[in-house]
Amino acid sequence: MTGETSRRRGRPPRTESADTRDRILTAARAEFSERGYEKTSVRGIAKAAGVDSALVHHYFGTKERIFEAAIEIAMAPALTAPEAIADGPMDGVGERFTRFVFGVWENPATRTPLLAVVRSAVNNDTAAAVFRRLVASQLLRRIAAQLDLPDAELRAELAAAQLVGTALLRYVIKVEPLASADPELIIRRVAPVVQGHLTGG
Amino acid sequence: MTGETSRRRGRPPRTESADTRDRILTAARAEFSERGYEKTSVRGIAKAAGVDSALVHHYFGTKERIFEAAIEIAMAPALTAPEAIADGPMDGVGERFTRFVFGVWENPATRTPLLAVVRSAVNNDTAAAVFRRLVASQLLRRIAAQLDLPDAELRAELAAAQLVGTALLRYVIKVEPLASADPELIIRRVAPVVQGHLTGG
Repeated sequence: MTGETSRRRGRPPRTESADTRDRILTAARAEFSERGYEKTSVRGIAKAAGVDSALVHHYFGTKERIFEAAIEIAMAPALTAPEAIADGPMDGVGERFTRFVFGVWENPATRTPLLAVVRSAVNNDTAAAVFRRLVASQLLRRIAAQLDLPDAELRAELAAAQLVGTALLRYVIKVEPLASADPELIIRRVAPVVQGHLTGG
Repeated sequence: MTGETSRRRGRPPRTESADTRDRILTAARAEFSERGYEKTSVRGIAKAAGVDSALVHHYFGTKERIFEAAIEIAMAPALTAPEAIADGPMDGVGERFTRFVFGVWENPATRTPLLAVVRSAVNNDTAAAVFRRLVASQLLRRIAAQLDLPDAELRAELAAAQLVGTALLRYVIKVEPLASADPELIIRRVAPVVQGHLTGG
């Protein structure tokens, strides 16, 4: 929404600009985590960052764009993982994908922002669209690209469905005995299913 | 919370009582669907039902209890299904469970209240606890009881994880190509996985 002209006109010196942008993003992540997408406002983010709302609009445009930038940071490990998952023999791709997902969820530092993203995506269509763009195109499509099969994208999505559903029941809804089960036991059960979706006949 | 004595003292005549209770529940379902668990208030439900807040407390006690009663109606088909799913040869239980879940999600009349329940459960720990009690104990435990295996409950949960995750990516996040795929194609891919979780070696 912010035109090139207005951005140039108001742009502060370089370092200050990067600092302010980071400060806004940190505040945005905290606000989205705490309140979810719908209840978070540009005004609230500006207040938490100690800047004027106009400056938030100046750097990011709309609330949707701030959310996208905040998600990109929260999901950074997930979005750089596909190469590592696809790397190595294809008969181990199911286990690598499964271990990666449980590694993110078992680590409280990555679980909290991910949970905030999932909650927002489940509740709000705009947040779902952002999640879809980032996760579907950046994570799943790259895994699918390595499969070299005509229905690779659907395969990657059905594999992701097993992982997303298991994470949801274990970490969010906390259904027992799944919630308290040893992660290694879950990985042993789930990895072959993920492998089957990705490369099975 | 409402004691037996106070319930008796204030109870209106039988038919009127049932009518009022139904009217409150209908209003509660609409409020929870529209606003989610957190933003719904007993006062708002009472207003929508055209009754006094005290009467809502009189019939249901707390907001959590109204939510539980509203979910029980929304989930009624799911909660009576386990016998039908477990009925018949065990080598078809994966397909019966899968067809049942997709039947509920493909039907807009059952999808809308279910989506409201899922959204509330993902966002609020109290709503998650209600969901867990109803779905885990009433649906999954009954399926597990038919399996007659030592880890039957974990099996039922991992099967449910594939179904819940697929429904989430298809109907809520709307990831493509999964969201637009023919339901029969999805069922063909997912049913053997569900079967494997439930009865596999």
